[in-house]
Amino acid sequence: MTMTELTAGSSLDAVAELAAQLRVDSVRSSTSAGSGHPTSSMSAADLLAVLMTRYLRYDWAAPHEPGNDHLIFSKGHASPLLYAVFKAAGAVTDEELMTGYRRFGQRLEGHPTPVLPWVDVATGSLGQGLPDGVGVALAGKYLERRAYRVWVLCGDSELAEGSVWEALDKASHYKLSNLVAIMDINRLGQSGPTELGWDLDAYARRAEAFGAAVLVIDGHDLAAIDGALAKAGEAAGEQPTVILAKTIKGRGFSEVEDKEGWHGRPFPPDMADRAIAELGGIRNLLVRGPRPEPAPAVEKPAGPPEDGAATPSYPVGDKVATRKAYGDALVALGARDPKVVALDGEVKNSTYAIEFARACPDRYFEMFIAEQQLVAAATGLAARGYKPFASTFAAFFTRAYDFIRMGAISGANLRLVGSHAGVEIGADGPSQMALEDLAMMRAVHGSTVLYPADGTSTAALVEAMAGTSGISYLRTTRGSYPGLYPDGNTFPIGGSKVLRSSDDDDVTLIGAGVTLHGCLDAATTLAAEGISARVIDCYSIKPIDIGTLSAAAEATSGRIVIAEDHHPEGGLGSAVTGALLTAGQGDLSVAHLAVRDMPGSGTGAELLAWAGIDAGHIAAAARRLTK
Amino acid sequence: MTMTELTAGSSLDAVAELAAQLRVDSVRSSTSAGSGHPTSSMSAADLLAVLMTRYLRYDWAAPHEPGNDHLIFSKGHASPLLYAVFKAAGAVTDEELMTGYRRFGQRLEGHPTPVLPWVDVATGSLGQGLPDGVGVALAGKYLERRAYRVWVLCGDSELAEGSVWEALDKASHYKLSNLVAIMDINRLGQSGPTELGWDLDAYARRAEAFGAAVLVIDGHDLAAIDGALAKAGEAAGEQPTVILAKTIKGRGFSEVEDKEGWHGRPFPPDMADRAIAELGGIRNLLVRGPRPEPAPAVEKPAGPPEDGAATPSYPVGDKVATRKAYGDALVALGARDPKVVALDGEVKNSTYAIEFARACPDRYFEMFIAEQQLVAAATGLAARGYKPFASTFAAFFTRAYDFIRMGAISGANLRLVGSHAGVEIGADGPSQMALEDLAMMRAVHGSTVLYPADGTSTAALVEAMAGTSGISYLRTTRGSYPGLYPDGNTFPIGGSKVLRSSDDDDVTLIGAGVTLHGCLDAATTLAAEGISARVIDCYSIKPIDIGTLSAAAEATSGRIVIAEDHHPEGGLGSAVTGALLTAGQGDLSVAHLAVRDMPGSGTGAELLAWAGIDAGHIAAAARRLTK
Repeated sequence: MTMTELTAGSSLDAVAELAAQLRVDSVRSSTSAGSGHPTSSMSAADLLAVLMTRYLRYDWAAPHEPGNDHLIFSKGHASPLLYAVFKAAGAVTDEELMTGYRRFGQRLEGHPTPVLPWVDVATGSLGQGLPDGVGVALAGKYLERRAYRVWVLCGDSELAEGSVWEALDKASHYKLSNLVAIMDINRLGQSGPTELGWDLDAYARRAEAFGAAVLVIDGHDLAAIDGALAKAGEAAGEQPTVILAKTIKGRGFSEVEDKEGWHGRPFPPDMADRAIAELGGIRNLLVRGPRPEPAPAVEKPAGPPEDGAATPSYPVGDKVATRKAYGDALVALGARDPKVVALDGEVKNSTYAIEFARACPDRYFEMFIAEQQLVAAATGLAARGYKPFASTFAAFFTRAYDFIRMGAISGANLRLVGSHAGVEIGADGPSQMALEDLAMMRAVHGSTVLYPADGTSTAALVEAMAGTSGISYLRTTRGSYPGLYPDGNTFPIGGSKVLRSSDDDDVTLIGAGVTLHGCLDAATTLAAEGISARVIDCYSIKPIDIGTLSAAAEATSGRIVIAEDHHPEGGLGSAVTGALLTAGQGDLSVAHLAVRDMPGSGTGAELLAWAGIDAGHIAAAARRLTK
Repeated sequence: MTMTELTAGSSLDAVAELAAQLRVDSVRSSTSAGSGHPTSSMSAADLLAVLMTRYLRYDWAAPHEPGNDHLIFSKGHASPLLYAVFKAAGAVTDEELMTGYRRFGQRLEGHPTPVLPWVDVATGSLGQGLPDGVGVALAGKYLERRAYRVWVLCGDSELAEGSVWEALDKASHYKLSNLVAIMDINRLGQSGPTELGWDLDAYARRAEAFGAAVLVIDGHDLAAIDGALAKAGEAAGEQPTVILAKTIKGRGFSEVEDKEGWHGRPFPPDMADRAIAELGGIRNLLVRGPRPEPAPAVEKPAGPPEDGAATPSYPVGDKVATRKAYGDALVALGARDPKVVALDGEVKNSTYAIEFARACPDRYFEMFIAEQQLVAAATGLAARGYKPFASTFAAFFTRAYDFIRMGAISGANLRLVGSHAGVEIGADGPSQMALEDLAMMRAVHGSTVLYPADGTSTAALVEAMAGTSGISYLRTTRGSYPGLYPDGNTFPIGGSKVLRSSDDDDVTLIGAGVTLHGCLDAATTLAAEGISARVIDCYSIKPIDIGTLSAAAEATSGRIVIAEDHHPEGGLGSAVTGALLTAGQGDLSVAHLAVRDMPGSGTGAELLAWAGIDAGHIAAAARRLTK
């Protein structure tokens, strides 16, 4: 095996050989797997060959080296090309390429994920790599203050996703000259030609209008690529760069070049042989490209001192909104932990993220009304080791569900905080009422779902979220409700609180957030009637406190009332009953109170009553169960 | 009460009086409600005054008149202005405005919904009205072939949503000259200035780059507004029109004009009095604007004959993918029902929507990779009485969850079809695996969730979806599996099928889609061991067949195995156990098999085994329960 080495000083003829290798290896790996996207890889091979040889500053032996550039394949289906790059860099072996790609239990997955150390974020749902890259570039420019660049390879089909334009908008707003989007305009999508085909002028007008510096090139002209990457990599201005590269899908293999019907199809072995022959055969070139800049990090110090503010607590009985407690707690957390950053979707005065924005302006990123970019930027910041808290109205996280799902696949530690949940918000009506958020967030792999009822528990849980892996979600409430817990209580994730109990309870009332207050009021009413109710604050909906719930079910003969300000499916009720069945608690009599109709406007109290989830309905349900 | 009437021939001085009335009424209604967005209404009052007097062709007494123009408030929080327009049109009374706005049980909700007959679609989640308007305009131009125009009022904050750019992209792709977006650029968002402020040139460059004809005006100059609306309304070209109107938030009341801190805040009564005084007092002008064109509809006939194709069925034992059956069934349905239309997110060769696209090209709309616009276009088409079927990979409907949620608030009848669900898809890896879709779709109000296991039942359910109200969702599978049902079976929504049963069953196995085949194989294995298993095809997950499930639970002593290709939360298991508890079935022993870890690539069979949801694991769970 010849191991000819390429360096940044190698000729473009040598780079052309590398490009051929990347194509050949894309063909080989996908044919060996019987699955994959060789033609989508071949269109971008020249771009990647020049980039990795001359411009990508990367220490392949030290993927976590902080000065490394970042390479994100937003067109994640071009994974054969990415893995061919890894082989050319000496990071994976040819054997792994040929036996590991798309195989069970292997790390060279169908679309790249961070199980590979050289991958920052999972891609494969299109239009997400560039938004994620904005988050990485924000970290580089404003927090780490390092010289690394973020290179993102985009496909042309994904330019139909609005999220791409949210990303360019934020990249120009934040003057991310360290971000380069390389757009592989190969004209053909999965099921046919793209909307704009090879109209590179149309793409250029769009990218320029969204604030990017645009370079249009022939994506198979190595000298042109070299010039564009040089210019982009040294961008001294205040704009992100978009390189629009006109390319040919399947480039290098005449049988498929620019032909429809070859998306997502590996070549059969005989065709693969012909492709490899046409491309000049198998090569094993090794690239020693540029190394990261050795300059030490100049991490910006946190604004406030690192010791300092204690987690806030609120007097028992005093009314405070849990969203206000979120803001207070985030400020305290930010004062202690310089890795804490916050983002919001232009509702920071409602979510109370504004308190953090004022206290730590250098660590606050306004994402305006672009919830997809909000979550993507958090994902990119998390990839750089920061602890992002992203907030908006709970209802509007539905806008970013695909990004949250992909964040879980990325293994990103994201803290999401949704305010104004449920019918409790009142007059604004159903468009602003999160009634699906608990179901949505619970279904995310490895997620944590929290819904506290008072200020003190909220503040404690915000602090806990900072140390929580994966996607954690905190649901806060619009209105102000009395403090429940004196100082000295702890609120571990996965726990619950028994607020009323006796040795001879008749029924268990389970609430979270606003409905917990209804449960407490109902218990008082019931006590006067001689019915003893145990009341549980189920502030941790996932994971849920199986032990406490089981004990209560047992103590109250399986009689349980669950009240939630959410549609009946997938929320608190589902979590509680699922946990009890898992724990082997049979013989249950459950009254599940939830929002079963489409709400309109009204006061919070009117709507809680209308939905049948207020104190009166909770008491009535308990009476029915204990009759 | 003076009832001066305005007509299209009234002077602009008279229109100015109307604009003052719209402002005054916006102030009055929001102050009376103690809630709402008067300043966001006041910025757009001049635009609406000219539009409703001179250009909006609308019969207010006949909101369902097919020739009516359409007026969509994408900035739904400007509902005080919309309702003031309704008053000026004589559609609602001043009394309703003053006592009904944002009140419990009333129809003038905080954000507009179609409980009002003059509202096409619910708005309030920003960036959705324009995408919905694209759907209405598609119907007008390509299906109804009527001369109506679609006027959409957009805010400037919402222009940060990528969905707005998806909408303009599709509007220009489909040459929707019948669509006019009026953008109210008032510079101030909820929590501060917008990104681009009054940089109308920047907005103009973006809108032009996305294919719109752009007119930039002073949004308080009635003559300029008049000129722009005239030009837009008669657009003879092949482009949508964007009118960029520079406006002042709170215009007309000097205390708040262009001031921060007044978003979403009604004026206290004393301020409201001053505002009304400054605006010249209360008026009761009545507008008799232009009427819809009397020209008869020239509805395009359906391509295929209206009788014709029968619902397909597939031989028992023959392997067919349910996604293929979807395509076949949709073609048959389309042949019989000219109201059936289909849309896809550029994966039509995978979802098999391509079969409909070929059979009925005039009723197929390609939305490319823009899932938000995919669902929004379906919502707009549904608002015009069509029966849209929108398909993409099941995983990618997460991209459009906010649009699906808002579709439910709109009361839209949407048929969504997600292919390639679960780990069964194999090599492509987790980014393409829907593992949260059942939870997401079940939590939508009034939704129907279907997951058939064979071709014949799939085809029957596609037909049933055409007659189903609300959001219905069909989950299809990538691979081919044996046909299970001979001709003559029916598959009602809310039903299930018992595929194996006896009088002395030991355990119930419940599956849907791919896992049903595992249940059947497991039952065969178990039978050989002397364990008799009842097998239920739970193809209708919502609504669910409580009767059959309860009977099975009773017959098998509460011993139930549920297997699903989905994360454990909110899916089939949650639906089954919730139904059994609701039915009063206590004493359950449930084994819930679901995808509990993060999958990678592999074959479908490898991954079903890895997840513990294949026949072997189902049989093992049944053995444990029956020990």
